[in-house]
Amino acid sequence: MLLAAAVAMLVGGLHAEERVDLSMTSRIRQEAFAKSQVMPLLEGLTEDIGPRLTNSPSMAKANAWTRSKFNEWGLSNVHDEALVEPFGRGWEFRSASAEMLSPRAFPLHALPKAWTPGTTGPVEGEAIAAKLESKADLDKFKGKLKGKIVFIADARAYKPGEKADWHREDDKSLADMQSLAVPADQTPEAKEEARERRRKRMEFAPMLNEFLVSEGALAAVSPSGWDNGILLVSGGGSRKAGESVGMPTLAMSAEHYNTVMRALDRKAPVRLRVNVDANFTSDTDQPAYNTIAEIPGSGAHRDEVVIIGAHMDSWHAGTGAADNGAGVAVMMEAMRILKAVGARPDRTIRIVLWTGEEQGLLGSADYVSRHFGKFAEPTDPKEKALPAFLRTTRGKLEPAKDYGKVAAYFNLDNGGGKIRGVYAQQNMAVTPIFEAWLKPFNDVGATIVTQRDTGSTDHVSFDRVGLPGFQFVQDDLDYFTNVHHSDLDVLDHIVPEDLKQASAIVASFAYNAAMRQEKLPRKAVLED
Amino acid sequence: MLLAAAVAMLVGGLHAEERVDLSMTSRIRQEAFAKSQVMPLLEGLTEDIGPRLTNSPSMAKANAWTRSKFNEWGLSNVHDEALVEPFGRGWEFRSASAEMLSPRAFPLHALPKAWTPGTTGPVEGEAIAAKLESKADLDKFKGKLKGKIVFIADARAYKPGEKADWHREDDKSLADMQSLAVPADQTPEAKEEARERRRKRMEFAPMLNEFLVSEGALAAVSPSGWDNGILLVSGGGSRKAGESVGMPTLAMSAEHYNTVMRALDRKAPVRLRVNVDANFTSDTDQPAYNTIAEIPGSGAHRDEVVIIGAHMDSWHAGTGAADNGAGVAVMMEAMRILKAVGARPDRTIRIVLWTGEEQGLLGSADYVSRHFGKFAEPTDPKEKALPAFLRTTRGKLEPAKDYGKVAAYFNLDNGGGKIRGVYAQQNMAVTPIFEAWLKPFNDVGATIVTQRDTGSTDHVSFDRVGLPGFQFVQDDLDYFTNVHHSDLDVLDHIVPEDLKQASAIVASFAYNAAMRQEKLPRKAVLED
Repeated sequence: MLLAAAVAMLVGGLHAEERVDLSMTSRIRQEAFAKSQVMPLLEGLTEDIGPRLTNSPSMAKANAWTRSKFNEWGLSNVHDEALVEPFGRGWEFRSASAEMLSPRAFPLHALPKAWTPGTTGPVEGEAIAAKLESKADLDKFKGKLKGKIVFIADARAYKPGEKADWHREDDKSLADMQSLAVPADQTPEAKEEARERRRKRMEFAPMLNEFLVSEGALAAVSPSGWDNGILLVSGGGSRKAGESVGMPTLAMSAEHYNTVMRALDRKAPVRLRVNVDANFTSDTDQPAYNTIAEIPGSGAHRDEVVIIGAHMDSWHAGTGAADNGAGVAVMMEAMRILKAVGARPDRTIRIVLWTGEEQGLLGSADYVSRHFGKFAEPTDPKEKALPAFLRTTRGKLEPAKDYGKVAAYFNLDNGGGKIRGVYAQQNMAVTPIFEAWLKPFNDVGATIVTQRDTGSTDHVSFDRVGLPGFQFVQDDLDYFTNVHHSDLDVLDHIVPEDLKQASAIVASFAYNAAMRQEKLPRKAVLED
Repeated sequence: MLLAAAVAMLVGGLHAEERVDLSMTSRIRQEAFAKSQVMPLLEGLTEDIGPRLTNSPSMAKANAWTRSKFNEWGLSNVHDEALVEPFGRGWEFRSASAEMLSPRAFPLHALPKAWTPGTTGPVEGEAIAAKLESKADLDKFKGKLKGKIVFIADARAYKPGEKADWHREDDKSLADMQSLAVPADQTPEAKEEARERRRKRMEFAPMLNEFLVSEGALAAVSPSGWDNGILLVSGGGSRKAGESVGMPTLAMSAEHYNTVMRALDRKAPVRLRVNVDANFTSDTDQPAYNTIAEIPGSGAHRDEVVIIGAHMDSWHAGTGAADNGAGVAVMMEAMRILKAVGARPDRTIRIVLWTGEEQGLLGSADYVSRHFGKFAEPTDPKEKALPAFLRTTRGKLEPAKDYGKVAAYFNLDNGGGKIRGVYAQQNMAVTPIFEAWLKPFNDVGATIVTQRDTGSTDHVSFDRVGLPGFQFVQDDLDYFTNVHHSDLDVLDHIVPEDLKQASAIVASFAYNAAMRQEKLPRKAVLED
């Protein structure tokens, strides 16, 4: 114990130069805790505007509404930036119902998958169990689906939830999170296999769409990925103009899906009625937009930038309150706080609210590759044919004009839980810096810096090209049990105090990064 | 420790005469575990027939279907017995939908309350927040509800589920369950207050129904009592011919209810569409029926009876799989097992599948009072005016003809979890008997006899008149977290192995009670 304490002091001593402006931190905390606007912002975004599927009318409303807030607060350079690649078509839905008519009449709980067509009024037909997961499956059911409502996957047995839905980190779990498992090598064969699997899945989706249309099916249904009546729903059909959008397709509560499948197992003729009011909002592919605003730097490093961001797009079953209205509201609130406390940062502080995160980090990937850098296109034609996220090689980094200007990127996208620390993404040099920055927030529960990588959100777009991009460690709450991509992702599952805490920390991190002598240290870029 | 062990031996010694026929127990276990029919029975009852609201067409189907099974198995005296008091009207629903049309369009998750009218097609109107819980509330909203869809309760904040949804007893919780808290006295004032509160609630319900109709409201909505989108729904309106059935009334998921309430708080005009296809199945009050069958006794005590039972009626949101399809299937299976193993009991073993349990143990109360005994009507006119379950005095017991003939009653109605023991209802003399009977089932997890009383189901009708009526201790599973009276009460949440275990234990208990030298000991009747 004595030795450990001595080492800790020594490490502390080595980084004694990392100073935090505690009077600015106090002002930020006061503004965040006592005059918070984070809940009205989140309510405006999620309840007034609603869910924000990429390129939907609601997403356009959200772009406009966030710009208007930024202008209201006196931020600079407020604008939307279109992605280079057209994203696809917009889509929205207004209502959806499914009913069993026989063997007994009762309502089924289901919602449409995004980018699948509506039904133009109620349609009725017999249900059929037809697992459609390969070309062989399509051959098997050829000629058998006309006028049918097709249940395209097996029933899925209920899995008891043996842990509490709601989960906060404690001292032990936070300590555990600071250990790192050295990653095992993936063999080239395993990599190739995984790539092949994903490629096949990509090829099969349009094939299935066209098959169901050409067979004259009425609708398709798959089971929700979660139990307890929760509807976990994302996309289907196709957002790309010119591609088959397939049939009206719904995700149904596992309990109701299984009820239909059991009736079919008993050879009971199952008759259903489905009615989905949904439509595409354009015939052609349209660009998607990131929304951007700044507090301009006023010091020697004004040409350098600290970026904070969160994705504004969401899935459509709930209102995207935790994923990622919470992140957006916290990032907006951090900018508001910095303006309100009269921050005059050395570097420019920029907020970017990303689009298309749910479809593959599209907004941040576009932004980073255009402004900061990207990997060279692969020469291997097999690799080149794949979308970037399916490739197994990276190539060489090609920095763009502003690659050297990025001091830091901070992201928030693990739901509405308060911040407990930061993932350092194996960039060890930032650890003492973040520890110093977290210290004034230890009392509100933010304590750890872990070397672990975390993925699946927009800091990855920065991290992979060697820019110092970070995502915070958050309390899970019910994010990964009930809320993520589900119909329960609504304001009720948000804890206001947690968002206040997070907005103070983000504002403080952005300010510290903007005032620091040096940009945040970078780690080596992994190139092939 | 030494002393305790000695006492235990002595107690054990005192009851050494309690013998169990272990070769019959083996045969019962083999039949129950290896040739079980309990899941097909439960599937037939819940998935083919559906939910079984008292006096609904499905309940009548269930009466007929269970009789046909009993006849098929060669049981005797198979019949339905009508309750003396007409229960009321039947009701059923086929579909229900609710949609928000503005400020943004999306589907709302809701189901109708039983015994409320349908809408005769889709109706549209503005939502209004009108908490209606007292006469003063009615006065406040007089003249303001015409054409409105009335949200009759406050929004209810989300409460995080901090325990696992799924719960089995362990050694510690089973040990804890064997301690008894000596009940505290309730003062006469507190009793009177509680009675007054219940009386007022009873009086208010029809007043609210009539008010909503006379004001010309379109529909009424209240929030589900559970979170996470679960619909906890029971009855509303009125089942009694001649009484106002009120408006079409729905229970809405808390998350969606709160969304509407928040929009109203923001002064956003909220327009909804509601469509409920529901109807009453008769104009006049009809009797409800218990279903009865027997394995006749063939010994000296053939005129005495061991009864096993469970309530067949259910609420309508799910299929009543855990409440109480599970109990019914287990009791039926116990009878089938006893026939299959060729049991020739001394006493008669009777199964009674109760009706109207969810409306106040109506089936069992009627059966017990008619055949076995009841308390004298109160002379106090205030008491007399109240239904029996609201009275605070009992009066004197008036035994009926067969009061002396009941050897035991066993009930199962705490969901689909396996049996962990028996509630002795403070009848200490049964403890060593049940301990001996449970011993051959210790290895499948049934171990404890607790002196605790448990209530809220049909053994109470026996227990309160001094008959030895018992309910088993069961693993909760997700019964009290997700399933009880909710749309999740469907087959998916049932564990087949648990029902097999329970059916073996029930068959064995029934057999032991039918073969024992004496009827089960009785405790004193508490009279006023």
